[in-house]
Amino acid sequence: MKKNFDALSRARAHIQDLHAYVPGEQPQGDGWVKLNTNENPYPPSTRVAEAVAAEVANLRKYPEPTSARLRAAIGERYGLTGQNVIIGNGSDNILDLITRCFVSEPGAGHTVPSYSLYPVVAGMSGQGLVDVDFDRSMTLDVAALAATQAKVFFLTNPNAPTGVAFPQRQIEAALQAIDGLLVVDEAYVDFGGESAASLLQDYENLIVVRTFSKSYSLAGMRVGFALASATVIAVLDRVRDAYNVDRIAQAAALAAFEDTDYFEAQRQKVMATRAETRAALDGFGWFTYPSATNFLFTEPKNAAGESGPEVAADLFDYLKARRVLVRYFPKHPLTCAFIRVTIGTDAEMQAFLTASQSWLNNA
Amino acid sequence: MKKNFDALSRARAHIQDLHAYVPGEQPQGDGWVKLNTNENPYPPSTRVAEAVAAEVANLRKYPEPTSARLRAAIGERYGLTGQNVIIGNGSDNILDLITRCFVSEPGAGHTVPSYSLYPVVAGMSGQGLVDVDFDRSMTLDVAALAATQAKVFFLTNPNAPTGVAFPQRQIEAALQAIDGLLVVDEAYVDFGGESAASLLQDYENLIVVRTFSKSYSLAGMRVGFALASATVIAVLDRVRDAYNVDRIAQAAALAAFEDTDYFEAQRQKVMATRAETRAALDGFGWFTYPSATNFLFTEPKNAAGESGPEVAADLFDYLKARRVLVRYFPKHPLTCAFIRVTIGTDAEMQAFLTASQSWLNNA
Repeated sequence: MKKNFDALSRARAHIQDLHAYVPGEQPQGDGWVKLNTNENPYPPSTRVAEAVAAEVANLRKYPEPTSARLRAAIGERYGLTGQNVIIGNGSDNILDLITRCFVSEPGAGHTVPSYSLYPVVAGMSGQGLVDVDFDRSMTLDVAALAATQAKVFFLTNPNAPTGVAFPQRQIEAALQAIDGLLVVDEAYVDFGGESAASLLQDYENLIVVRTFSKSYSLAGMRVGFALASATVIAVLDRVRDAYNVDRIAQAAALAAFEDTDYFEAQRQKVMATRAETRAALDGFGWFTYPSATNFLFTEPKNAAGESGPEVAADLFDYLKARRVLVRYFPKHPLTCAFIRVTIGTDAEMQAFLTASQSWLNNA
Repeated sequence: MKKNFDALSRARAHIQDLHAYVPGEQPQGDGWVKLNTNENPYPPSTRVAEAVAAEVANLRKYPEPTSARLRAAIGERYGLTGQNVIIGNGSDNILDLITRCFVSEPGAGHTVPSYSLYPVVAGMSGQGLVDVDFDRSMTLDVAALAATQAKVFFLTNPNAPTGVAFPQRQIEAALQAIDGLLVVDEAYVDFGGESAASLLQDYENLIVVRTFSKSYSLAGMRVGFALASATVIAVLDRVRDAYNVDRIAQAAALAAFEDTDYFEAQRQKVMATRAETRAALDGFGWFTYPSATNFLFTEPKNAAGESGPEVAADLFDYLKARRVLVRYFPKHPLTCAFIRVTIGTDAEMQAFLTASQSWLNNA
């Protein structure tokens, strides 16, 4: 070696302190009932495959840099224009753009628990986080939210990992109360939440973030979008990579977005399966938060009627040993006694319920 | 409006000052001979379409977050491992990661002229640029480069927009001379340059950046990569979006990368066409830099034997009026008397040469 370079010590100070986001486990091998990362159990619209195949012929050429057709289609759907829309390489990309543009002291605001990426994107920009803690009632404390004085507050609605949706009047109250931007992260809203998009007419301090990963079955394609005032979008565009969304992603997302019949049918199917699964969990006597998402957050009780972190961890391990993978968040008092179960196909949910019943019988 | 929000004034100071990157023009309508954005005139390997079609069935699921297979394949090709490789959503994404991790006062170093994205990514992170100016000889001044004391120096090799390649011994001299990181941006190296990748064995302060956009004909797919020490890559991974490269992009890039016969044939074809085009420009009596890229940078002379900014601009306009689109960079004394012409198909180059001859005849 003619020249050494100690990369970590030469990185910027906030990078040295950074902890990377840990995505959900992607198990290797076959035979898994995978209910841990909130993927849609159904494939995307068949129009996606057609659109992708048609676009392959154009891959030697750069994409349209602004995703103009997709922006226009999305804007029109929400009674807005393409100037009110930005497309990201996944909604994570958009959360990063928002942070880079607008977050400064005292850091980004967020609720605890919520999406664990917010601390990561804040840290990537050298910013901290200001927490607003939920209690078990999962009531949104609008005054606490405003008191953070965060320049940007990230609010996941419906919440993850609990699945609880906050009513529109609370979102509006938050928009009234805060001085900065409210980012309403609606990754799961299509499964029963009420979108804040209609509030964009009245509130320039609102950004609504959406994704094609869940309700459009395109997690593998990385397309998200945000709706906001044209001036907010124009600022975000300043830090967007000029070609941040590739040709195939633009074409696939547009095809999925325009197949509204398929979208509606799959969404209803997931919600119906959720209702059946929830009824079965109620039958076990487990507390489960009301869900407006494609997952259920449930507090298992063992045969002795006990709940708590050890019980939840035991069920998680029991299920995993039987190749049923759910998600367990041990680190927070509000989550450590629960497991989060993605809504899969009816057969997958039956496998989960059968294994859970077996755990109950064997406890 | 119940709440106004003046987004620009509320953005962070460095964002308010930011000027967005201006990509090359993408003309609307048919009939254009498009020689302005250095796209490959030939489509990607037919294996790409097969790989893409196979991957569509998996789009409901998240991608493998680290692009592990692609990293391993690239690492092996260069006598390295997957830990020496990072995959980006285009190489622009990687330039941004490098900047976020390592650039601080006095800003990023770069040569002038070179890739106009460097000032943009530096500005996105609130950092400035330190210039090292070329003169017409396009000789690399290694001492000037070291004297910038930049924590990161971006060196495009071969240079854009001139096409000039710098010899390996100068790259090594730069690695010796500087204290920080040297980023050798080899977007065009497959068209006749010498890669610095072999220097990675000896220099931990080297990052080699590559793209699938040019030599692999995948500009529309957005895949780039960097080669560096495992410790440098591990730092860059800290600010990489967990799912920055989608399933189809990973599959398409791997298929293109593995079809080495096709890659070699297309690369040779572009270089042969370049030699023929260059000979024709020599026949016009125009000065053209030696090119190790898929473009030529030439200084047109009109029929009266005059050259200069007005002559170059006149030729650019004349060609554009005839739907032959090349690139003109009016803002720098070293570029303003030149046009940059991408190497297209033989027919496209003939159209360019015929129109240029017509311009000469009509001047």
